[in-house]
Amino acid sequence: MRKEKIPAATIIRLSVYQRYLKRLLANGVKVVSSSELAYEASVNPAQLRKDLSYFGRFGVRGVGYDVASLLNTISGILGLLDEWRVVLVGAGPIGQALLRHPQFSRQGYVFEAVFDFDENHIGKQLEGGHTVRAIEDLPKVIKERGIQLAVLAVPSERAQEIADVLVESGIKGILNFCTTRIRVPRGVSVQYVDFTILLDTLTYKISQNNTGNKEPVSSAKPKWAREHSWPVVQSNIQRQGVSLTS
Amino acid sequence: MRKEKIPAATIIRLSVYQRYLKRLLANGVKVVSSSELAYEASVNPAQLRKDLSYFGRFGVRGVGYDVASLLNTISGILGLLDEWRVVLVGAGPIGQALLRHPQFSRQGYVFEAVFDFDENHIGKQLEGGHTVRAIEDLPKVIKERGIQLAVLAVPSERAQEIADVLVESGIKGILNFCTTRIRVPRGVSVQYVDFTILLDTLTYKISQNNTGNKEPVSSAKPKWAREHSWPVVQSNIQRQGVSLTS
Repeated sequence: MRKEKIPAATIIRLSVYQRYLKRLLANGVKVVSSSELAYEASVNPAQLRKDLSYFGRFGVRGVGYDVASLLNTISGILGLLDEWRVVLVGAGPIGQALLRHPQFSRQGYVFEAVFDFDENHIGKQLEGGHTVRAIEDLPKVIKERGIQLAVLAVPSERAQEIADVLVESGIKGILNFCTTRIRVPRGVSVQYVDFTILLDTLTYKISQNNTGNKEPVSSAKPKWAREHSWPVVQSNIQRQGVSLTS
Repeated sequence: MRKEKIPAATIIRLSVYQRYLKRLLANGVKVVSSSELAYEASVNPAQLRKDLSYFGRFGVRGVGYDVASLLNTISGILGLLDEWRVVLVGAGPIGQALLRHPQFSRQGYVFEAVFDFDENHIGKQLEGGHTVRAIEDLPKVIKERGIQLAVLAVPSERAQEIADVLVESGIKGILNFCTTRIRVPRGVSVQYVDFTILLDTLTYKISQNNTGNKEPVSSAKPKWAREHSWPVVQSNIQRQGVSLTS
């Protein structure tokens, strides 16, 4: 591996490549072209080659990539050659929806135990066979089973306190569905999930199209057209809790 | 606005800045330093200044940014000065969890109507007052109310078909919780949400730490420590449906 800072976007794309390669392998496809694989991640083939170049040399010019071999390599880079056991903290609507989401087990993430501090949830039997346990049991379960990944889906005001317990117990990575930032020591990573930030990227694009604030078009990566123009239909209601006029 | 390609990561960070500025304003804070605002988005002040420089000149050296004014500017760039009405397609666990998530209304996203094709869901009264409507009503509702944003949370095998209906009806942005890619024409944007891809970024970091594959440390942006070393405790179960050895 080159001693070079690897962009976060490259790691995300490795995951996208990995999923597509898995699908190809399952369908019996042996070789994939760089343009097909790049298309899947909405980049051009040069970006795909750059992404892979951080980790070595792959593929044969004019032939493409060996699906099984590249899948194995990328899975290894991402740490995905084995299953990962995960604790879920927060058995509310989001937490329960995640438990039932087939994509986790399909990608090798296994929910090992579910915790909550809400007396109404503790002891409840969830679909899929999990019984919600009290937060007090969290350190013991994490330590005994050597779990390193946690999904945090508690109300934001409890997020830091629970994160502290997770870190003390040995968790090294937290997928955080709470909308507040949490502080963790070095050696622990946090990935934030805020659905509304993703919606903002869409409203940005729609608004840019509407106002005619055109970004230069990259011919290699046409993301959306600029020739469209239409009135943005929005209600003119003030945002909750904050006036946006200064 | 400079005629320069604005990185997707910059747009995401604008959302993070925007949320923090809203919080500051609600707490009566009038001025914020670049280092404080940058810290919130896990970047250094130089990156913050670069992000803002795409859109003009802001802040006063040695003083900082006027909270209300910068909030207003960033909200305008992101198209967030008004509310956005959203249709939800898919009233399963994820869809219902999103409906109940307070962050949407807090950020000005209002679920206007909910649709499903499952006879077991249609007509059901959901928490919050929505009644699930049949997919057949989708074009009429979108056109009549001029809605441009949709959240797609249907089983992956139906995603493309529903996306086609959304686009034909006038939707310009789709937040897609399905794990398959969908094809949309120019002028329409799709933002994918795959929780397991975010987990992969965590397993990547944990695995890198474990194997000692150190990326160079940037002193400005220390994301995780490299001095740690521990055995990765993982079960050795083969991934579902795919052998990873070539």
